[in-house]
Amino acid sequence: MTTPSNPVTDLQLQHRSVRKYLSTPVTDEQLELIVTAAQRASTSSNLQIATVVAVRDANRKRRISEAIGGRDYVENASVFLVWIADFSRNVELVRAQGVETETVGLIENTLVGAVDVGIAAQNALLAAESMGLGGVFVGSVRNNPEAVSTELGLPKHAFPVVGLALGVPDPEEGTGLKPRLPLSGVLHHETYNVAAWEHAVESYEEEYREYFETQGIPGRSWARTVTRRIATPEGLHGRHTMRDSLRSQGFDSE
Amino acid sequence: MTTPSNPVTDLQLQHRSVRKYLSTPVTDEQLELIVTAAQRASTSSNLQIATVVAVRDANRKRRISEAIGGRDYVENASVFLVWIADFSRNVELVRAQGVETETVGLIENTLVGAVDVGIAAQNALLAAESMGLGGVFVGSVRNNPEAVSTELGLPKHAFPVVGLALGVPDPEEGTGLKPRLPLSGVLHHETYNVAAWEHAVESYEEEYREYFETQGIPGRSWARTVTRRIATPEGLHGRHTMRDSLRSQGFDSE
Repeated sequence: MTTPSNPVTDLQLQHRSVRKYLSTPVTDEQLELIVTAAQRASTSSNLQIATVVAVRDANRKRRISEAIGGRDYVENASVFLVWIADFSRNVELVRAQGVETETVGLIENTLVGAVDVGIAAQNALLAAESMGLGGVFVGSVRNNPEAVSTELGLPKHAFPVVGLALGVPDPEEGTGLKPRLPLSGVLHHETYNVAAWEHAVESYEEEYREYFETQGIPGRSWARTVTRRIATPEGLHGRHTMRDSLRSQGFDSE
Repeated sequence: MTTPSNPVTDLQLQHRSVRKYLSTPVTDEQLELIVTAAQRASTSSNLQIATVVAVRDANRKRRISEAIGGRDYVENASVFLVWIADFSRNVELVRAQGVETETVGLIENTLVGAVDVGIAAQNALLAAESMGLGGVFVGSVRNNPEAVSTELGLPKHAFPVVGLALGVPDPEEGTGLKPRLPLSGVLHHETYNVAAWEHAVESYEEEYREYFETQGIPGRSWARTVTRRIATPEGLHGRHTMRDSLRSQGFDSE
């Protein structure tokens, strides 16, 4: 890598998920800057789909954690952010003009909601990291979107896409950077290149096994990890019924 | 805002979409650092779903632009990145273990693919901006995902989610920052708060109209912009058939 990095890319390259936190709180001022940074990111057609519900109440965090299968980092986070793909504002705006939306339930809007939430939430996490905070995305809010939606009082056309637990990192937590696929496997030129990723995966398996060995976990294989996740419905921890969950919030996803 | 900002949040807060570029190229070294930063972002269950196809060939950029409705910034970008929700690697890995995936077509995976691509692509754009480059997300790759997939030679279980045009910003382009909803409208505490966004939208409409007046465009209304986009299928520029497009790449999205 010959391009000089800079403080922004340095921070990005040091990213690791932080799941253990000190009791020091994330301040309201920090939270406001974090969400303002998220809001400033690009938003498809300026729809401004992302809404954030910030949960600090210990009982609410515990109830959410229990509903999604038990997640210490949700309960122990100073603040747990739930990122919502929120078309309810837009639908109400359209209605106020005497028009009914015909398209809000289409899968294009499910997609654009998820992408826009991802874009906003990543800006939030990086902003938090730039202040010395740490966090972890919590996809398991989708293990039980019905319970999370009820707990947060979400209206129709608002769907919890991903959580983000934030806090001051506990220095006792390990600081290893899990290796990624070699760049050649994911950056293709002009057209998709199957051979490129086949080579990359081969060398990655070795790096992956060695990394987990240094963490005291021998014999790990990326192929087996992937298989556990996508081979059978059990790997989805309840998310195989996602279409029904989306429907119940007004996203027919046709 | 009393929290001291820092170079990272300063850059995030200055974000604007850049659609006009000088002829100076984005170098390969810059591109590699940009995609490495994207790769380092969080990835759900370490599936590493995001693949990037970098298009520099002028004819290919032109063909893509034409297929999606004509986008100057795709044709004029130094490099046009197409971000792929790519489960094809994962599916092949699972097959290599003698197992067939049962779940890859489920809508949960469409969702997680879109979120993970959003997270990665935002890190890429911010990395580019940190180097003095500029860019714009191009959701219109979804105006014609079939043509884009064919052009890039995408395999089954790989879907083009969003494009990112990058280049050296042309200083002649306007530098206004389009206003966003007041923070109080999108950051809710403990539970969803309809009243909060109702107030926010009211003051936003005024700010929105004033901003476009300063850009020489009088009489703009956010409610009307939103209505054009989500009231009827025409507002989706072909994306109302997204479910079929996803199916044709192996995502049944059930």
